[in-house]
Amino acid sequence: MDRAALHRQLAPEAWPRPGLSPLNQLICVLILLASLAAVLETEPTLRRLAPGLFTTLEVVFVTLFVLEYLLRLYAVGEDPRYRGLRGRILYVFSIWALIDLVAILPFFLGLLAHNNAFLLRLLRILRILRLSRLGRFSRAWSALAEALKTRVHELLLSVGVAGLLLLFSSACLYVVEAADQPEAFGSVPRALWWSIATLTTVGYGDVTPITALGKFFAGLTAVAGIGIIAMPTGILAAAFSDAFQNKHKTSGEREWNDPTS
Amino acid sequence: MDRAALHRQLAPEAWPRPGLSPLNQLICVLILLASLAAVLETEPTLRRLAPGLFTTLEVVFVTLFVLEYLLRLYAVGEDPRYRGLRGRILYVFSIWALIDLVAILPFFLGLLAHNNAFLLRLLRILRILRLSRLGRFSRAWSALAEALKTRVHELLLSVGVAGLLLLFSSACLYVVEAADQPEAFGSVPRALWWSIATLTTVGYGDVTPITALGKFFAGLTAVAGIGIIAMPTGILAAAFSDAFQNKHKTSGEREWNDPTS
Amino acid sequence: MDRAALHRQLAPEAWPRPGLSPLNQLICVLILLASLAAVLETEPTLRRLAPGLFTTLEVVFVTLFVLEYLLRLYAVGEDPRYRGLRGRILYVFSIWALIDLVAILPFFLGLLAHNNAFLLRLLRILRILRLSRLGRFSRAWSALAEALKTRVHELLLSVGVAGLLLLFSSACLYVVEAADQPEAFGSVPRALWWSIATLTTVGYGDVTPITALGKFFAGLTAVAGIGIIAMPTGILAAAFSDAFQNKHKTSGEREWNDPTS
Amino acid sequence: MDRAALHRQLAPEAWPRPGLSPLNQLICVLILLASLAAVLETEPTLRRLAPGLFTTLEVVFVTLFVLEYLLRLYAVGEDPRYRGLRGRILYVFSIWALIDLVAILPFFLGLLAHNNAFLLRLLRILRILRLSRLGRFSRAWSALAEALKTRVHELLLSVGVAGLLLLFSSACLYVVEAADQPEAFGSVPRALWWSIATLTTVGYGDVTPITALGKFFAGLTAVAGIGIIAMPTGILAAAFSDAFQNKHKTSGEREWNDPTS
Repeated sequence: MDRAALHRQLAPEAWPRPGLSPLNQLICVLILLASLAAVLETEPTLRRLAPGLFTTLEVVFVTLFVLEYLLRLYAVGEDPRYRGLRGRILYVFSIWALIDLVAILPFFLGLLAHNNAFLLRLLRILRILRLSRLGRFSRAWSALAEALKTRVHELLLSVGVAGLLLLFSSACLYVVEAADQPEAFGSVPRALWWSIATLTTVGYGDVTPITALGKFFAGLTAVAGIGIIAMPTGILAAAFSDAFQNKHKTSGEREWNDPTS
Repeated sequence: MDRAALHRQLAPEAWPRPGLSPLNQLICVLILLASLAAVLETEPTLRRLAPGLFTTLEVVFVTLFVLEYLLRLYAVGEDPRYRGLRGRILYVFSIWALIDLVAILPFFLGLLAHNNAFLLRLLRILRILRLSRLGRFSRAWSALAEALKTRVHELLLSVGVAGLLLLFSSACLYVVEAADQPEAFGSVPRALWWSIATLTTVGYGDVTPITALGKFFAGLTAVAGIGIIAMPTGILAAAFSDAFQNKHKTSGEREWNDPTS
Repeated sequence: MDRAALHRQLAPEAWPRPGLSPLNQLICVLILLASLAAVLETEPTLRRLAPGLFTTLEVVFVTLFVLEYLLRLYAVGEDPRYRGLRGRILYVFSIWALIDLVAILPFFLGLLAHNNAFLLRLLRILRILRLSRLGRFSRAWSALAEALKTRVHELLLSVGVAGLLLLFSSACLYVVEAADQPEAFGSVPRALWWSIATLTTVGYGDVTPITALGKFFAGLTAVAGIGIIAMPTGILAAAFSDAFQNKHKTSGEREWNDPTS
Repeated sequence: MDRAALHRQLAPEAWPRPGLSPLNQLICVLILLASLAAVLETEPTLRRLAPGLFTTLEVVFVTLFVLEYLLRLYAVGEDPRYRGLRGRILYVFSIWALIDLVAILPFFLGLLAHNNAFLLRLLRILRILRLSRLGRFSRAWSALAEALKTRVHELLLSVGVAGLLLLFSSACLYVVEAADQPEAFGSVPRALWWSIATLTTVGYGDVTPITALGKFFAGLTAVAGIGIIAMPTGILAAAFSDAFQNKHKTSGEREWNDPTS
């Protein structure tokens, strides 16, 4: 296989047909399998069942990712921006190439033994994002991003209002519940834990007000929580609706729903 | 009653008027009653109250469903696709006829005694779906399906983003809480249980972080949970809005709101 | 005050200006106060604090409601439909007059002593609905009702799908958790309690699965719960959006936003 | 710096460019830092770590806010409404100047020693709202306010329906659960605590029904909770969608998405 064909297979933006190239599809599967292995390895009962399995798997995955990294480094020469030695150095320090590197470096730095090395290994999954942004989901990405960008001020504003509600509800609960439950409501930062669980309607129930006044403010907070959910949902719904309709007008409906793209 | 009239009664697509035929309405009621009986039979206190009742009921329902199956097999000959012996064999192996069969077979295979046979009996309720898709709800089905199909990439993307959030939040909680609560956060798969309850804002509260850093990450996860709800809701709202408006344009508003259809 | 003026004050549809007449506004306040008294009376600590207060209040409220009832009976003669003795009897058996009667009858039937008589007294609050439907909120009522009516099939369909999910998730949990937690998951009806708390994302946490397989199905149920919320929300958002836009087209934007109405 | 330049820096509406002036941006940061200090001071472990730190910080913040207040009083003379001594007195009693005063007065009234003085200090954060309403977020504010105003009757109506559901569900639970759990469901006001946690889908789980009938009504309440969330979300989504589209029509799409504003 010559370098131009390899480049078409590896660089999602160079693939002439819609979707991902077979090689990149294979790499996506590999990344998912490597992430799954990293996740499962944290479970002690599985580690005890097959002590050597996860190390073997990691060696296999790193070998494949090193191979992929070298192939990308070789093939990227097809791109005019990264031609020659200077171009390759430029490529190595590009954001996505650094993420590719992070996916393999921990192994060689002997971090594998360390407990938290798996977090670095999980970063590999971010590479899926890069591939998906250029494959079949590129249109969905841009539709979502466009909708978010158009309404970024409204969304930030509702985040700000949510923050104020969070602050005032935890301040109220601190004032009325601190005496009865010093462990849970003894300070505003402590009351924040209850407040965020209530405003997001998660409601763990590990900490709840017990005084009548505390329950009254908690009820108000819970009701405000509905607004906290309704506000961004409504803004996003309107933004998506607008974004879709603008797309319709500019590109025509047939093309937008084209199943081949 | 001749075969043609029977076919009109049994095959929802052959019924000339909107809605379901009287016979199919009766069968829907029977399916619901049989499912209700299967559900109630699992309750030990009810089984003790009336030991023979549920077996008797099941015999009655299976007899009726066998009768219905045979009538369908006879009447389907009206359909040019399933004419003659060859057509009948073709019909028996069609997807909906197989589901009809699953609704009666367990009884004859002596599985009734087994504890989990009721799961197979519950499958009967899927037959309701088939009938509803061709009755009064056919337009609602197609409106929902069309809206989902148009935005399938955006919805899959938000599912993917939700999956990533799920993974990273459980990884964070594993790192900061594993030492304090090995039973609940001792591995990423274990932390997933907490993570999914938080991101979907269910929040059982059987497992909650106890360290300050764990609560910080849990708060971020709970806030992200709002996005997890707002994103698909917004996409669906926009998609439904689009689908309804396109319907308006193509078929005219009066026909769409026609109460007789 | 002559009968015609009294009728204009009492019958919301006869009031010539937008909003409610002063007399009906006063009655609304009375109904709210009477309901508040009925609610507070159930609290034993308040009953002990002021033993005779609530009985006195109830006598006052019933006297006023009896007076109102008699005035309505007198003034309704202005309405051509309810003229004369025959018209009055017709009026007494109309739906809203019966609800008015239910608001005062329990007191005379000596039901006050009974514990659950307050439920009948709470029915009084339904009279607020009648008044609001004809006052300042009449347009909002019709906008919401119209939006719900247009999409009733889609909403019923999503209720049906939610019901199926409810049934299958409780069936799954019953199968995998019954052996470990017979009290909570020992039958499908018992598992329904957990299932409804999860699918609606309430998540009390009084009952949670403990087996790995149970947690897996519970996670799927929690994720499905997001769809259960997103589906009707999206349908309603699209329906409201449509209803508002149709109003704009037919009646003109200025009138719709008219602050005086 | 002359008075006119100072006025342009301090009064957000006098700043000629979009966004906030550098001085007001600095003041925003100061307000956030002062609020953060007030929040952290409530935590006993932090107070013990650095006993004098928080008092010192408060002195610094109050000094800066006093300075700001005096500068505002001096510079406001540029505004024709607040010219001269009479104008300054008018300014001092304007709503925002009073909030500015509340931010510094507690310190001088010796309230600092009191436990709840921090609530007054938190009021400072409201000053952020004033600045944001005139800065980069002014358009987002007006878009949200317009959308809310147009649908205020529909939103109030859904709040009213939610209030009725709240009342009836707690009344039902009181009737069926009072005998078994007098502490949690012994009166309607007590049952309200459970009811609000369920209808908002928070679901703490500190109080749950235990009788079969109680669980049945609780399930209905939980399902109604979805409507409680879906209704305002749908109304807001439709309102935002309308508001955005009207903006498009009146001001043209290019201007609306103008990144410089």
